[in-house]
Amino acid sequence: MTTTITIPAIKTHARLDAIQPAKRWGGSRQDVWSIINEAAAASPVQPFVNMSQGYFGWNPPEFIREAAKQALDQFDCNRYAPTKGRLRLREAISETYSPLLGRRLDPATEIAVTTGANEGMLSVWMAFLNPGDEVILFEPYFDQYLDDIQMAGGVIRCVPLHPPSKGDVEVSSSSEWTIDFPELERAISRRTKMIVINTPHNPTGKVFAREELQCIGDICVKHNLLILSDEVYDRLDYAPFTRVATLGPEIQQRTLTVCSVGKHFFCTGWRVGWVIGPARMIETIATAHLRICYCTPGPFQEAAAVAYEQSLQNGFWSQTREMMRQKMTRFCEVFQELGLPYSDPEGGYFVLVNLSKVRIPRRYPFPPHIQARKRDFHLAWFLIMELGVAAIPPSEFYSAEHAHLGENYLRFAVCKDDGILDLAKDSLRGLAPYINKS
Amino acid sequence: MTTTITIPAIKTHARLDAIQPAKRWGGSRQDVWSIINEAAAASPVQPFVNMSQGYFGWNPPEFIREAAKQALDQFDCNRYAPTKGRLRLREAISETYSPLLGRRLDPATEIAVTTGANEGMLSVWMAFLNPGDEVILFEPYFDQYLDDIQMAGGVIRCVPLHPPSKGDVEVSSSSEWTIDFPELERAISRRTKMIVINTPHNPTGKVFAREELQCIGDICVKHNLLILSDEVYDRLDYAPFTRVATLGPEIQQRTLTVCSVGKHFFCTGWRVGWVIGPARMIETIATAHLRICYCTPGPFQEAAAVAYEQSLQNGFWSQTREMMRQKMTRFCEVFQELGLPYSDPEGGYFVLVNLSKVRIPRRYPFPPHIQARKRDFHLAWFLIMELGVAAIPPSEFYSAEHAHLGENYLRFAVCKDDGILDLAKDSLRGLAPYINKS
Repeated sequence: MTTTITIPAIKTHARLDAIQPAKRWGGSRQDVWSIINEAAAASPVQPFVNMSQGYFGWNPPEFIREAAKQALDQFDCNRYAPTKGRLRLREAISETYSPLLGRRLDPATEIAVTTGANEGMLSVWMAFLNPGDEVILFEPYFDQYLDDIQMAGGVIRCVPLHPPSKGDVEVSSSSEWTIDFPELERAISRRTKMIVINTPHNPTGKVFAREELQCIGDICVKHNLLILSDEVYDRLDYAPFTRVATLGPEIQQRTLTVCSVGKHFFCTGWRVGWVIGPARMIETIATAHLRICYCTPGPFQEAAAVAYEQSLQNGFWSQTREMMRQKMTRFCEVFQELGLPYSDPEGGYFVLVNLSKVRIPRRYPFPPHIQARKRDFHLAWFLIMELGVAAIPPSEFYSAEHAHLGENYLRFAVCKDDGILDLAKDSLRGLAPYINKS
Repeated sequence: MTTTITIPAIKTHARLDAIQPAKRWGGSRQDVWSIINEAAAASPVQPFVNMSQGYFGWNPPEFIREAAKQALDQFDCNRYAPTKGRLRLREAISETYSPLLGRRLDPATEIAVTTGANEGMLSVWMAFLNPGDEVILFEPYFDQYLDDIQMAGGVIRCVPLHPPSKGDVEVSSSSEWTIDFPELERAISRRTKMIVINTPHNPTGKVFAREELQCIGDICVKHNLLILSDEVYDRLDYAPFTRVATLGPEIQQRTLTVCSVGKHFFCTGWRVGWVIGPARMIETIATAHLRICYCTPGPFQEAAAVAYEQSLQNGFWSQTREMMRQKMTRFCEVFQELGLPYSDPEGGYFVLVNLSKVRIPRRYPFPPHIQARKRDFHLAWFLIMELGVAAIPPSEFYSAEHAHLGENYLRFAVCKDDGILDLAKDSLRGLAPYINKS
């Protein structure tokens, strides 16, 4: 029997002032995603094209949706899944990734399925970081890393990828975002526990070269550090792609590789990802995952297993890579027309465009929360309000010290229908009058 | 292009000794779930009946599975869901729970959908706990709370529910697990931030009385504490059930109510839950949830919305309650036959049975990891190996100081098919020769 009670209008009697958010949230400025989404919603321009977030403009392929529907009638899919994930999925991942990682992956001990790559990385940080342990990130970084590392008590040390030297004036390759290795080694202290790599890289599109990964790996061996390699864009590689875990046993034994079923099969809303690594580490990661999420949705694990199995045969990976690469080429044409340099991506579906040539009219009215930020926020606001195109200002993906490195760039996501890309190109042509030709 | 590299057999060169799990996992003994599952797998008895974990013995109802299948063809369900959850689900929760909570719930601001109730509670702790903040738990508690609170830096203070005074000799009501209120108030310090309630309670089946909740609420107002009310078994209430959030505005404004779609609709593997609370608190909880899991699976949110909508009309709630209550009655008959006292549950699907009358044969061989634990672990092992029935030893759900309070009990989950319950009863009749009749 349930009791229903009618309560009078609420008055604030209680001393609620002490019930404040934890300090870990206290320093947060408004995040870039909500700033851009709110601005996009307020834009007077129609049609409006949102190229900011990396969500796909199409449904997951029918073979994975069909498999999910069938899994929903499977009793054992609907109840709690095993902590490390359904065995069929771990076996399918092993089948697919053993050749790519150059060793036989044991499905029982070397793979943990997680609730998205994001929760996979949080599980890694919760598994290994003690309060005060330092984690080295390359800038620009995916902003979600910051709070996740801080939740685990970690402290972030940033090392910039140095932008292409002629990035302001000509199209460059994303490979020209470079690491200063002495600078990297100077960032290591006695408290350093881990270096995070992201390749193909968001937002630059850089695919870390084999030699760069070898240097990073050697540094990690020398200083006894873990490597977390975020490879969620791994199947969208347009240049020779090396996985750091393949660079010898000493590096492999300290490397955790993270991937995303959502990014692989266009089902980011399903929340399935995974971590591959040495058995002893996977054990601890699974313990952390158990406590964070208990387990990962079973029907989507089963569907992912079927999708990996079928993709060994059906050409899905090469079709996807080709499709995304064509979208990138199609979209970037507009920047060539406009004479705006961009960083030609070696992987992924983001492109960083350099807008240093764009002259925003003097006294253009920015609201205070935009005015207070770097020039890339001004550019993003201007494009939203004048052209009806949303993109992400990447200075958000830097520490305050290095944020100026991103202030002339905007990040566009091309994982959209071709019609949307063409609409965006049409809108972006409106930039022409604002571009300095000199 | 993907590079495949062949690597020689692995040799351990690296100084991996320093890459240890974080200290937060260091003190962990083997958890009760894996102990019992491993023992169950090693039992020589056939047929074996697992009454330990609370997973359901049947599929989710067709109306929610059908809705999930349809959602899988809905483009916006397959991509990232909104941080606070899909609006249709929040509206359906508001429709269902506004009458139960005695106030109009604003779907936009007062509800956050989470990746299961577990991740909902972790989000609450991450949202509000600073390192060193104390959280009061009633013992026995759900063991998952411990690590989740510790991940957020919280410190646990335990207050026991005192067992029924005649629990060793006669059937008692689960209402006889009682709080010593002066003891509760003595556990509060300057660092106390929150009291956690779980009603209907796992594992005792206690439904907290209105007067008890009023006392707890008044204490929280007096000491300015948050209340986290874990109400995941709320639709399985066999006695008058009060929600603490209904006990006046001062209490409501500091209360966070957590529920589970998985427990409501028998789809624990889908990982959908939710938190209801004051808007300002829900905002912070959503921020934590965003960082932990990014968002909750979209297709299952849509299906849950449909299920709550339909359950307003289709009699699902009362049918479920009646079904579970009948299972409880059916199963407990065997303990009446055997003369074993149990704590008759006022809610949920767990029953605590008192086995102080059971005499385990002298020199019965327990493995060391069982021998080292309290008597309830010995009892659980004995039932697994001799009768082929698995149950959970509840001393695991106590601090070391109070673990003796649980050492004569075992927890059985009755959320199984009737055939399984009957099989378990048959097996349990084998206890008769070991029961002290005096």
